[in-house]
Amino acid sequence: MESKEEGKAVSQDHLRLLREKNISLTKEKISQSITEDNFISQAINSIHEYEKASNLLGKRLREWYGLYNPAFENVDQILNVQFSAKRGSMGRELSDIDKAPVVELINAIRTLNELKTSTRSYIEQLMKIYCPNLIELAGPTIGAKLLEHTGSLKKLAMLPASTIQILGAEKALFRHLKSGAKPPKYGFIHDHNFIQSGPRKEQGKRARALADKLSLAAKLDFFKGEFLAPKLKKDLEARFK
Amino acid sequence: MESKEEGKAVSQDHLRLLREKNISLTKEKISQSITEDNFISQAINSIHEYEKASNLLGKRLREWYGLYNPAFENVDQILNVQFSAKRGSMGRELSDIDKAPVVELINAIRTLNELKTSTRSYIEQLMKIYCPNLIELAGPTIGAKLLEHTGSLKKLAMLPASTIQILGAEKALFRHLKSGAKPPKYGFIHDHNFIQSGPRKEQGKRARALADKLSLAAKLDFFKGEFLAPKLKKDLEARFK
Repeated sequence: MESKEEGKAVSQDHLRLLREKNISLTKEKISQSITEDNFISQAINSIHEYEKASNLLGKRLREWYGLYNPAFENVDQILNVQFSAKRGSMGRELSDIDKAPVVELINAIRTLNELKTSTRSYIEQLMKIYCPNLIELAGPTIGAKLLEHTGSLKKLAMLPASTIQILGAEKALFRHLKSGAKPPKYGFIHDHNFIQSGPRKEQGKRARALADKLSLAAKLDFFKGEFLAPKLKKDLEARFK
Repeated sequence: MESKEEGKAVSQDHLRLLREKNISLTKEKISQSITEDNFISQAINSIHEYEKASNLLGKRLREWYGLYNPAFENVDQILNVQFSAKRGSMGRELSDIDKAPVVELINAIRTLNELKTSTRSYIEQLMKIYCPNLIELAGPTIGAKLLEHTGSLKKLAMLPASTIQILGAEKALFRHLKSGAKPPKYGFIHDHNFIQSGPRKEQGKRARALADKLSLAAKLDFFKGEFLAPKLKKDLEARFK
């Protein structure tokens, strides 16, 4: 009888241990499942939202500030000008009470714009660490545009080279599909030095070759491959000498 | 010949003066056309946009912060907690570089929420000056809700009393129109003391009477009438003794 109870206690102990171990393992797995790509993707998606919020508030500012000075049209102009500056002769003089919420609105828009800028440089920092191949080959501007457009390094790494080639030229692509116009040769990568430095006739070919290597670079980065970007660059240049 | 040229000069002078006078008159008219209602309406509409922007950023924060501590679900909770507080054992430890943009995002949401609060109290200030009848009769909360819902004092003043009565109960109204359910008796004004203090059976009648007086109050305020709210109140109470 006693030994039976003992056995029960042991087995309960055992179960408890098993359960605890299980929970901590699961937690660890959850923790490990969060990769750098999650951070890149959060930051990239946030940029779109900061833009949206800033535009929303900017429209309101333009209307509201317009009561004070209808001649101002441009939000950037309003953001740059001191509120106390001499106003136009149209519009209504604002009391301090009426001014305060507009000034606060201006500051909120500034905050959002600063947030956008600092998040952009955070993305660049992340890219330097986690997408060394992509950033070396594409440069920070085009690299960030490709990532922003697809939403994450994972998604970019999964795309075929032919899609990467025309990312950012969706409008032209759909025009091509719908009305049979010429297909686009390049999207974001159009401004890349490798394409710009070639003769006009060769730019389509160059775009295809570059997109090939960019696709490879994105895959290398996502699957934590070697840093092969300098070799990829050399290959490209050798091909179009 | 000389006198003719002189005459021409005089008439040109005359035209120039006329033109200048015309422009300054037009500018004055534009200036005068901007009424307090424009400020109220700008402020009221901005509140909706601050809410929208804050929700947009809040959703992002919940996701982003979730990488750090998945157990947190509520944005207010995140806003109230210090980032450096002990985190749950799930989620990933964030480096300072990864923390910075999230902290900045938290601050931006706080800025937007403060903007909302201060704009709300600005609206109340304006209402005290420009809608004395409405605020006296409706109280600041219900008064602001009626204004927020319609968008401006002008629009509210133009509404029939029967519409004011059910503002804020649109869902019930459309249910009534579509499926023949009972029509709503009141919207925002439901919480008004005058309705709450009456017996349940009388509340519909009271709502109609109150909406009547509110409509009158809004019209008085918009057309710069007298301050009759105390009399309107007395009338109401006398009717339901």
